[in-house]
Amino acid sequence: MRATLMYAAHDIRVEDVADPKIQQPTDAVVRIVLSCVCGSDLWPYKSLEPTDTPRHMGHEFLGVVEETGSGVRTLKPGDVVVAPFVWADNTCAYCREGLQTSCPHGGQWGVNGVDGGQGQAARVPQADGTLVKMPVAEDSDLLPDLLTLSDVLCTGYHAARTAGVRRGDTVTVVGDGAVGLSAVLSARLLGAERIVLMGRHRARTDLGRDFGATDVVAERGDEGVDLVRELTGGEGTRKVLECVGLKDALVQSLGVVRAGGTISRVGAPQYPEVPFGFGDFMRNITLTGGVAPARAYIEELMPHILDGSIRPGRVFDRTVTLEDIADGYRAMNDRESLKVLVRP
Amino acid sequence: MRATLMYAAHDIRVEDVADPKIQQPTDAVVRIVLSCVCGSDLWPYKSLEPTDTPRHMGHEFLGVVEETGSGVRTLKPGDVVVAPFVWADNTCAYCREGLQTSCPHGGQWGVNGVDGGQGQAARVPQADGTLVKMPVAEDSDLLPDLLTLSDVLCTGYHAARTAGVRRGDTVTVVGDGAVGLSAVLSARLLGAERIVLMGRHRARTDLGRDFGATDVVAERGDEGVDLVRELTGGEGTRKVLECVGLKDALVQSLGVVRAGGTISRVGAPQYPEVPFGFGDFMRNITLTGGVAPARAYIEELMPHILDGSIRPGRVFDRTVTLEDIADGYRAMNDRESLKVLVRP
Repeated sequence: MRATLMYAAHDIRVEDVADPKIQQPTDAVVRIVLSCVCGSDLWPYKSLEPTDTPRHMGHEFLGVVEETGSGVRTLKPGDVVVAPFVWADNTCAYCREGLQTSCPHGGQWGVNGVDGGQGQAARVPQADGTLVKMPVAEDSDLLPDLLTLSDVLCTGYHAARTAGVRRGDTVTVVGDGAVGLSAVLSARLLGAERIVLMGRHRARTDLGRDFGATDVVAERGDEGVDLVRELTGGEGTRKVLECVGLKDALVQSLGVVRAGGTISRVGAPQYPEVPFGFGDFMRNITLTGGVAPARAYIEELMPHILDGSIRPGRVFDRTVTLEDIADGYRAMNDRESLKVLVRP
Repeated sequence: MRATLMYAAHDIRVEDVADPKIQQPTDAVVRIVLSCVCGSDLWPYKSLEPTDTPRHMGHEFLGVVEETGSGVRTLKPGDVVVAPFVWADNTCAYCREGLQTSCPHGGQWGVNGVDGGQGQAARVPQADGTLVKMPVAEDSDLLPDLLTLSDVLCTGYHAARTAGVRRGDTVTVVGDGAVGLSAVLSARLLGAERIVLMGRHRARTDLGRDFGATDVVAERGDEGVDLVRELTGGEGTRKVLECVGLKDALVQSLGVVRAGGTISRVGAPQYPEVPFGFGDFMRNITLTGGVAPARAYIEELMPHILDGSIRPGRVFDRTVTLEDIADGYRAMNDRESLKVLVRP
């Protein structure tokens, strides 16, 4: 089959790789109908050292079950399914408490002989635990929305949930990328009344307003912090969702969070140390969040997509074929595109 | 009156200062019956540069109301009261949500013309909000226990509360100082079943066992982390109470916290950056805590002292007179003493 490999920064190739086959009784093979490029794919796209053992890319996909191992009980060929961006057994103690990203029997896509999601098909380990069946046909118009359950919507939702967003809250969302916009949508879904979106790309913040942002602050750094404080009676907001992953964004989050408040970070941190010292200690700031256990949220969020009440797939503003995926990476990296759909 | 002044590291003097007088209608003057030296007093004791404007020391005291301003409604001369280590109005939005340390009308002892607690008396601003009346006489044997409501017990309790300690929990407490031991007592009070105390001073960890620690790990660093993990099925504990304030203690806390778990730090951080990067992000670790709003917990904790069910004053293992307080600082700094009572 054809799949996406990264050989170095800016060097994305689509090549022939081995067709996926059932290896364990708990495996399934899924024909991929839709996948996409993640903001986190851009970190190695900017920085990967040239390698002879290229990375198998992609961790967001949905598709149709083609074959199941003898131990798979809840799925059958023909089922339309979505895969979260980490596979897991969904039965262990971590999974039962909703932390599938720490499942000791789970793992990442694209490593240790597991396929990536940006290809024509994938072997799915722990298929019963990993895949979630969806009541739609493979040509449904809802597929782009449902694909966001794989990562980006659940990641934004994880930010809102771990920050404890509730009905009536005022929330700041730092970052107008696809995760930030999904965090806006999620905060709205959880009942936040006022949502301040910090972002400077007009097309993106306009979509953020559609998703529920009530205020947009385009300024960054101290100027942005001052503006958010002005908007919130000088105090900042109790909940801040950090959806970027850069140190500046965390510093900005610390600037806009109210004393006693919570910052949830879901942007994978591209920095080893957090500037979170005596001053923030004196203000009783909590720093939470982390990699989103998407699997934990799929059943909860899917009904809102199926009934049309949310349209998270609006973060996709470009579609490429698998053979043209390198141009999708380029477009996202150049900020020509917010998030790119890939049709194998 | 006599009061404690710090002129430089290791230079503590007891000198005559102005007697406290009512300045605002909301003030009270309290004759101090009992105060003590705090672990946090030792930070400047180790490091303060020589100065001509010495620091007024002390922020933990109880005593008897001598005089009240015309606006004070809930207190009268003769009342026996305890003061939390930050004064506050206890009526503003922050105070009402239990964050008296962020009260915009409050402040610290010993600065901006407010007396310190290590003296014969103190002017107490916002007296109605700050002071809590206690149903005991000024010669009660319970006074050392009640004095812990001023800071150390409430600080340990803040760690346990913000970490979300509940009935049946397994908790690690990092640090066997007076705050760490108070955190053990607090975790037990909240129903923790298993409490692992990390500390290497036998007399202190023995008191920790009396306070409720079920396991003691004397080793530090990686060795200590490995031992705590062994004790907890390889996983570490969901709740970790960091009661030291040094970077090594935080690193140790990150080592023993289970994926999805919470570290609450109440030791004032003596470091500007937290090594809290990608690995901890992938494990969904929460970092919470901060300076304890002692005022928020006094009414809740006092009954346990009055009925004798907890004896937090056992952290005091030495008593000095005010005139001899410099020797009390020295003894604590040399680890001859865990925590020193001061009788003015």
